[in-house]
Amino acid sequence: MARNITPREKDYSQWYLDVIKAAEMADYAPVRGCMVIRPTGYAIWESIQSQLDERFKATGHVNAYFPLLIPSSFLEKEAKHVEGFSPECAVVTHAGGEELEEPLVIRPTSETVIGYMYSKWVQSWRDLPILINQWCNVLRWEKRPRLFLRTSEFLWQEGHTAHATREEAMEETLRMLEVYRSFMEEVLALPVVVGEKSEGERFPGAENTYTCEAMMTDKRALQAGTSHFLGQNFAKAFDIKFQNRDGELEYAWTTSWGASTRLIGAIIMTHADNDGLVLPPNVAPIKVVVIPMSPDQNRLQDIMLPEAQKIVDKLTALLGRNRVILDTQFHMRPGDRFFYHLQRGVPLRLELGEAEMSSSCLRAVRRDTAEVLNISFDAVEREVPKLLDEIQRSLFERAKAFRESNTYQVSSFDEFKEVLNKKGGFIKAYFAGTPEDERAIKEATTATVRCFLLDDSSEGTCFYTKKPGGRLAIFAKAY
Amino acid sequence: MARNITPREKDYSQWYLDVIKAAEMADYAPVRGCMVIRPTGYAIWESIQSQLDERFKATGHVNAYFPLLIPSSFLEKEAKHVEGFSPECAVVTHAGGEELEEPLVIRPTSETVIGYMYSKWVQSWRDLPILINQWCNVLRWEKRPRLFLRTSEFLWQEGHTAHATREEAMEETLRMLEVYRSFMEEVLALPVVVGEKSEGERFPGAENTYTCEAMMTDKRALQAGTSHFLGQNFAKAFDIKFQNRDGELEYAWTTSWGASTRLIGAIIMTHADNDGLVLPPNVAPIKVVVIPMSPDQNRLQDIMLPEAQKIVDKLTALLGRNRVILDTQFHMRPGDRFFYHLQRGVPLRLELGEAEMSSSCLRAVRRDTAEVLNISFDAVEREVPKLLDEIQRSLFERAKAFRESNTYQVSSFDEFKEVLNKKGGFIKAYFAGTPEDERAIKEATTATVRCFLLDDSSEGTCFYTKKPGGRLAIFAKAY
Ligand SMILES: [Zn+2]
Ligand SMILES: [Zn+2]
Repeated sequence: MARNITPREKDYSQWYLDVIKAAEMADYAPVRGCMVIRPTGYAIWESIQSQLDERFKATGHVNAYFPLLIPSSFLEKEAKHVEGFSPECAVVTHAGGEELEEPLVIRPTSETVIGYMYSKWVQSWRDLPILINQWCNVLRWEKRPRLFLRTSEFLWQEGHTAHATREEAMEETLRMLEVYRSFMEEVLALPVVVGEKSEGERFPGAENTYTCEAMMTDKRALQAGTSHFLGQNFAKAFDIKFQNRDGELEYAWTTSWGASTRLIGAIIMTHADNDGLVLPPNVAPIKVVVIPMSPDQNRLQDIMLPEAQKIVDKLTALLGRNRVILDTQFHMRPGDRFFYHLQRGVPLRLELGEAEMSSSCLRAVRRDTAEVLNISFDAVEREVPKLLDEIQRSLFERAKAFRESNTYQVSSFDEFKEVLNKKGGFIKAYFAGTPEDERAIKEATTATVRCFLLDDSSEGTCFYTKKPGGRLAIFAKAY
Repeated sequence: MARNITPREKDYSQWYLDVIKAAEMADYAPVRGCMVIRPTGYAIWESIQSQLDERFKATGHVNAYFPLLIPSSFLEKEAKHVEGFSPECAVVTHAGGEELEEPLVIRPTSETVIGYMYSKWVQSWRDLPILINQWCNVLRWEKRPRLFLRTSEFLWQEGHTAHATREEAMEETLRMLEVYRSFMEEVLALPVVVGEKSEGERFPGAENTYTCEAMMTDKRALQAGTSHFLGQNFAKAFDIKFQNRDGELEYAWTTSWGASTRLIGAIIMTHADNDGLVLPPNVAPIKVVVIPMSPDQNRLQDIMLPEAQKIVDKLTALLGRNRVILDTQFHMRPGDRFFYHLQRGVPLRLELGEAEMSSSCLRAVRRDTAEVLNISFDAVEREVPKLLDEIQRSLFERAKAFRESNTYQVSSFDEFKEVLNKKGGFIKAYFAGTPEDERAIKEATTATVRCFLLDDSSEGTCFYTKKPGGRLAIFAKAY
């Protein structure tokens, strides 16, 4: 167990911060609620970004950039939107040495300014669909900040699309939900429940919000990405109209969808352990570290180092540039060198010392299980990719089994409260309540409706109101 | 000549804006001085970003992210820095519904907050060097905005490094200057003069500023990227100290270097013509467009389209995903389809109509020269990459020849003024003046010292003060 990390069982919040600190992933910034993402953490974001971006482009999207500053009057054009976001806004009142005529808000999200621009770009059905994504920073003032999970400024992507028909916009909303699900499960090894948000948990201004919900190792839920069907709400607020094929003017149908640096928090709280960060190979910026060692400096330089370099080169050809690194921290003891990469979550460590040289076999240590394997020099190109796939699969399976063993179905509020207090986790229940019922449940238990399940259309008696026709929902305490 | 573009000879500023509009590269945002970078423009930025980032990583740098908001007191810690930047700052005074105790500025550049963080991260010489780069948005309030060239918000990268010695920091400063030069010349086909800024044109807080200066087609200079040797100025202001190998505390030596979306303006004003945008193949997101055509819809679908797709696939295998596109805008006339891609600067157009089908030869049209070539279907993989290289080379040579034919050496102020008024362009002259002399020259002529040449260490009598020991400088009117 790492001395610089509080055990997870003892204090989950402190464990989380210790893991981040030990891996040098992030720091609080001098401005309250803001963070600095350090190179180890930022490399994970770059990996997320490039792989999500590839999936966005494969589904026909292009990137663009919209301005940071939004006139405060824009927010007010959509009633629910301003109500949801204005309490969290940072406001610029002075610029260029003068007081501004109209205060500007730093974007908390960009539906408004993008809606304004789309209304200028869209004239005819031929201009639709618009399929644009933006990678940027946003700001939502946060009184109880937590690195990666809740910070005043965070990095994200926000997709904004406009369509000629309701059906097409709804298809897009669900397509992007599936892009998130597959990315989270295949790349981040993050099993997620996909579902529809209840009325009380919807994005301000949306007709429907869809979500990917993951279970953290403290059994709380984390909303990992959302996709919103905005109907014609923003089109009406910003006058996005087009001439249809029959020459009639119609409002467009829009969607938006986003995922953020919060995903890094989800990775930590799903895979990390008491020794520190654990990264699934598919998202790990560094997938393998090769560690040449010898008490004899001459042998180290003349024999181990060139052999280690050969292995790095072979694996780099398979896994990509900068994905396999050579550790040359020779001023450190072997154990400290192991620990350095272990705490940064590198999925696989290959040790190359005297014993390994004489047996022509590397000592391979899995980060996820600490399992040790011997891989002969000749078999490296065959065995390492297989092993990485196995680690990826195993991290996903472990997380999925954890979620399943911590999900309980209930049929009454008493049962609901008992499970929540004694076991925690996800509670499955038929629900047909109003937003007021949602609020009452939250006040009584701190648990919220995470979503209505999309892959289960069964109906049942509401556990709370006892009304018939309840949809199957997941409730949980959430981040 | 394009009807939607004002001729360059008639009104250079309007021509510039028309080119941007015709290519749908950018728009002004609703907030004065800010811009929206549309997909065509943003794809160019993505191309710049990925290729510069690769060069930064190849020279040992990693990326990180520092906060958008900086306490206003931070700016004041370096006297020249606050003097230079505070008049351009946007100030946040309210956030989360409350008035802030200390106003926050939106970063105009990040030396201050990064210096503050480095002081926490650096203890020993073993923590050095720190070689970090950041891709982000910055804000400098702009009263006379111009798309890409001067906007209140812009996108850029800012490298920030800290070193144990003066020599190492100076090496880094010049290494990054060379990274910029080679990138600008090899990728953007932008010939640049590299040199050192005069005292009057230095970055606020720097000991030396180095620059890449390019000549636009209106003969004005554009500063395309800068690299700053900051000495120990910011280390002293933010207390970045480390224990050296002898156990003594020393201040670190820092550098910073940046290039921005302004580069897109430089590409336009170097390569575009009266028909619109012209992109050098190495930076062009789309390098080739293939245009299948036929008056017969059946033949178009059954014969031209599959043949065109084959060509796209072959070239994609060579040039990369999304680099070669198939135009299927069949509702448009052929001429309009040509023009659509021409105005977006696509370097090479391959036409495939009835004549081409029967001769098994594509009609290839170069964007830069309008030259037409026939390329047989079989030779596409051999000829197209060669042709793209030739276009790249030729754009660079043309720009370089233009700069050279518009550079004049002078030895007196009278000559200086005469050249500037009658010819414009770059003026080479030995200069040994003070910042006051620089100001006087600027007031009299609007021209500024762009830089002292780095590759020429000759000395001569100052054209202005007539003092000996002048260094060879370039003067020009500048953007
Ligand atoms: Zn005031
Ligand atoms: Zn106030």
